[in-house]
Amino acid sequence: MERDILICEVGPRDGLQNASTIMATADKHRWIAALAAAGLPEIEVGSFVRPDLVPQLADTAEVVAQALTIPGIVVATLVPNAKGAERAIAAGAHKLTVPVSASRAHSLANVRMEPLEAVEQVRRIIALARAAPRRPSVEVGISTAFGCSMQGAVPEDDVIRLAEALVAAGAEDLCLSDTVGMANPRQVKRLVERTRAAVGDRLGALHLHDTRGRALANALAGVEAGIRAFDGALAGLGGCPFAPGASGNAATEDLVWMFEEMGLRTGVDLDGLLRARAILAEALPGEPLHGHLHQVRRAA
Amino acid sequence: MERDILICEVGPRDGLQNASTIMATADKHRWIAALAAAGLPEIEVGSFVRPDLVPQLADTAEVVAQALTIPGIVVATLVPNAKGAERAIAAGAHKLTVPVSASRAHSLANVRMEPLEAVEQVRRIIALARAAPRRPSVEVGISTAFGCSMQGAVPEDDVIRLAEALVAAGAEDLCLSDTVGMANPRQVKRLVERTRAAVGDRLGALHLHDTRGRALANALAGVEAGIRAFDGALAGLGGCPFAPGASGNAATEDLVWMFEEMGLRTGVDLDGLLRARAILAEALPGEPLHGHLHQVRRAA
Repeated sequence: MERDILICEVGPRDGLQNASTIMATADKHRWIAALAAAGLPEIEVGSFVRPDLVPQLADTAEVVAQALTIPGIVVATLVPNAKGAERAIAAGAHKLTVPVSASRAHSLANVRMEPLEAVEQVRRIIALARAAPRRPSVEVGISTAFGCSMQGAVPEDDVIRLAEALVAAGAEDLCLSDTVGMANPRQVKRLVERTRAAVGDRLGALHLHDTRGRALANALAGVEAGIRAFDGALAGLGGCPFAPGASGNAATEDLVWMFEEMGLRTGVDLDGLLRARAILAEALPGEPLHGHLHQVRRAA
Repeated sequence: MERDILICEVGPRDGLQNASTIMATADKHRWIAALAAAGLPEIEVGSFVRPDLVPQLADTAEVVAQALTIPGIVVATLVPNAKGAERAIAAGAHKLTVPVSASRAHSLANVRMEPLEAVEQVRRIIALARAAPRRPSVEVGISTAFGCSMQGAVPEDDVIRLAEALVAAGAEDLCLSDTVGMANPRQVKRLVERTRAAVGDRLGALHLHDTRGRALANALAGVEAGIRAFDGALAGLGGCPFAPGASGNAATEDLVWMFEEMGLRTGVDLDGLLRARAILAEALPGEPLHGHLHQVRRAA
């Protein structure tokens, strides 16, 4: 299928890890199957983190196994370190997503490493992936690239230096992440252009949050700067733990809806997304769901 | 004050006319005073329509009189026809906003006129304004310029022909209105560029709705196409009557927040807007309020 834009659904990972309830494994499978049926080409189905820290994703190996039975999708999982990568590889994931924080404060608090030290971790994960029989792809997400709730502003030079170090360590696919939704469109355009000037089209993706309501505006700025891959979470799941009630990830349905109306093909079907949303609403009662498609379609 | 972007607050008109309760006149004054104190340079305080049709705005003459006592703001009112213009002029409004629909279906249903017939109405209103002692300015809003819930798509050629006819009738300031929030950024950029190619910078403003979550993305596209004036409603008031719970106008606070972080000066103070929002929430209990600034600031 011809796609102008690739949407990666991260709701089962970035959405559920912030949810106040734990979704049952069987519901995850129903939901992921519905997301795949809607035409999403890539789904981040979980994370190989410590189950005591993120109990919502403790069943990731089982979720990966089930997702692998769905034809035609790339099954991605987040891996925070080499141990997580080994588990993801053993589970058979097609793609490993590795977060590295551009914010020193965030990196020290999260993984007790300087951002550039974390690059060594990435090098080891890439080596593990290359040695694995099915050679999963590895994408590195540069988190807090547009600002950090601990550190505040993150210097653009730090992001670019980190991107260059990651590429030198063998990273082939980079994503800039607006982890806490602080970016503005001018900043997105500038940082994407500067990073691409440094590492070329190895920077292919953006991960945006809607905390300040700018996910779509920032996505537009990204498209204008040449980005063709975007993360989204159905119903904008993944609200910020520091801002109760605030929006979470860019809502997949609103991203798809906007891009399609702009004439950019995503290969994703809006009605299919609404069916997946109905499963989500049923499987995660009481969780605030965002997004605009649902309201307008319900009224039509 | 240097401003790169002019924000016109339309909440007291486009917001309240869709509200399920009627705000008391004294509350309107408190609210409008707080909006002015936040630095908003222009406020559309009401509409001279038939009070039996829009009882929420029946006190517009009194609201105008009170708003005129606030120094430094442009007091605008919507006028649907010459009779409304006479009332607005008698009340002393600085600016008259006249809606003319680009959608034939919408125009026939609303004012029982073809769009081009409505231009005659505009000509009479401009003549009334020029003959008035204080010579209020007249802005014509081309409503349903990006789509219509009755007619569906609105041909761009119809919008441009209408804009040309309005300019020929003496209109000096035009605004394109996405009345039902159907626009996408590519469309905004294209239609603004085409309209400006036809009538130059007489097209100066955009009126955007957030029904599909794209108000900020469309505002960005507008800025990129040269637009420097935007309507907004505090708390995104003005939800669509056809989509209960749906977002309304572009939220003033989110517009200001995004523009300011992009380095575009609005002259509007975010804390001042939050103070105005508190008055709004108190004066209109039970009304759904939107916007993101409030949630993030509350959590900080």
